[in-house]
Amino acid sequence: MSSGFEHEMLSSSKVHGGYLHRVRHYSPCNDCHMTFAIFVPENTLKTSSKKMPVITYLSGLTCDDTNVSQKGNAFQSCAESNVCFLMPDTSPRGHEKIEGEDASWDFGLAAGFYLDATTDEYAKHYNMYTYVTKELESVCKSVPEINERVDFERQSIMGHSMGGHGALTIALRNPAKYASVSAFAPIANPSAEDCPWGQKAFKGYLKDERDWKMHDATELVRMMEPGTMEKVTSAILIDQGDGDTFYATQLYPERFVEAVEKINVKPGFVKYNVREGYDHSYWFISTFMRDHVDFHATNLTQ
Amino acid sequence: MSSGFEHEMLSSSKVHGGYLHRVRHYSPCNDCHMTFAIFVPENTLKTSSKKMPVITYLSGLTCDDTNVSQKGNAFQSCAESNVCFLMPDTSPRGHEKIEGEDASWDFGLAAGFYLDATTDEYAKHYNMYTYVTKELESVCKSVPEINERVDFERQSIMGHSMGGHGALTIALRNPAKYASVSAFAPIANPSAEDCPWGQKAFKGYLKDERDWKMHDATELVRMMEPGTMEKVTSAILIDQGDGDTFYATQLYPERFVEAVEKINVKPGFVKYNVREGYDHSYWFISTFMRDHVDFHATNLTQ
Repeated sequence: MSSGFEHEMLSSSKVHGGYLHRVRHYSPCNDCHMTFAIFVPENTLKTSSKKMPVITYLSGLTCDDTNVSQKGNAFQSCAESNVCFLMPDTSPRGHEKIEGEDASWDFGLAAGFYLDATTDEYAKHYNMYTYVTKELESVCKSVPEINERVDFERQSIMGHSMGGHGALTIALRNPAKYASVSAFAPIANPSAEDCPWGQKAFKGYLKDERDWKMHDATELVRMMEPGTMEKVTSAILIDQGDGDTFYATQLYPERFVEAVEKINVKPGFVKYNVREGYDHSYWFISTFMRDHVDFHATNLTQ
Repeated sequence: MSSGFEHEMLSSSKVHGGYLHRVRHYSPCNDCHMTFAIFVPENTLKTSSKKMPVITYLSGLTCDDTNVSQKGNAFQSCAESNVCFLMPDTSPRGHEKIEGEDASWDFGLAAGFYLDATTDEYAKHYNMYTYVTKELESVCKSVPEINERVDFERQSIMGHSMGGHGALTIALRNPAKYASVSAFAPIANPSAEDCPWGQKAFKGYLKDERDWKMHDATELVRMMEPGTMEKVTSAILIDQGDGDTFYATQLYPERFVEAVEKINVKPGFVKYNVREGYDHSYWFISTFMRDHVDFHATNLTQ
């Protein structure tokens, strides 16, 4: 496809031997301009192709691509593993204002929840599910600096908090697309009544309550047959800080882990770590980012 | 000294197995409140003392402690080497406003140049030299979480840009205090006529032009006798990006390196690296931070 998305390279900064590109482009599915970033290492492998696998990182509430690029501690380990790191935004921005979308930090702008909205107000612009799973790849392929280095046949996905929700649900709904999936402190059961973030988001974005379970990682697993999980992805890694104030009020990662283990996965298929004293911030993420990058790199090169 | 500085622990965040503490305190030498940060790793050495050496990092123009703590990529390597990382601010803040101190980004607030000002306007509050070389250590010793872990008999110093100027001049003027000194893209010859940053700062802060050379790393070295440099510090490391727009208009690190080499230092005493394609930003710093931390850790434990 050489249609080419209209795009502008905002910056290309040399870091850890590779380049961090920031790209602005028109997004048909969100009907507005979007900005994303991607870290493309120098490929140090002695292979004929210069293409490398890619990890998509989905950020949490209030973030854009710059939080993880600046604070996430991802690029050094990506450079060592010859893996690219793709950082989309957390919602559309820059479209004509929707009434109420900037009224709170946990809904609307910077809080797109990685779904395709169906409510009248949000359906036109809030389609982050389609953006992350389809459109962003096409955009990347139309940017020469990215296309010549990224092998989109080898992808993994990960995320933090709302982005952990996004990574888990997107991996579950796209079997065999992502070699592995991981999350930091994911919103693991957003349709539950005791998850205020999920309740607020799903009420605002989804017209029909029967659609909620399709955007809830724990509920998606509960609908799966025993023995089917290994066809979806090859491994799952989740880290959770026990000093995280949202752990027992919004996130509930154990519900997801228990649901997965109930459908007879191989021992070690889900690796779940509770980390003593860590909170919900990028201090936590930056501490364990290398583990996550190494986890995906291993699964992407097998 | 148990006088104790009045202080407030703003936050203590767990990261890379240790803690990032942010402390606000009254600074007598600057006659205002100051905020600094320090990363204190968990000490994994099997020694009887829990105390670890410390690297002071001096930031550049416009920064405070948060730029390097969030973007600097220092803590993972510090944790692996059992070395603390101390991050002072770049100027006093919060005092009664001085006319003009917030008029530009390269003078006044966030641009203290790590000297003790002598002009009438700035002498009262702008005493970052005394703050970094003396007062900050006393403050740290009055904070139990810091004092019980930091061995101030083993110090190194480093910095970026204005902070590289600070690190080099402070090390040169305090022989044998710092085991080693390093800099990213330092303002190496600020009293020169072709260094607009230095000219502006020194004119604004220093009453007597004869004092300028005491705050210029290259000029300080030019005043030294052959064979004396090894008594000042044990090694110097400088990294400079060749895509840095300030390289040939403000920084001039080669002048410093040449001056040091002229006074008959041991081969390898100064390690100077020009890095292809890197700019002046934290992308550059984060790429080579591990090299600098490892360099200091080696010199601090010898």
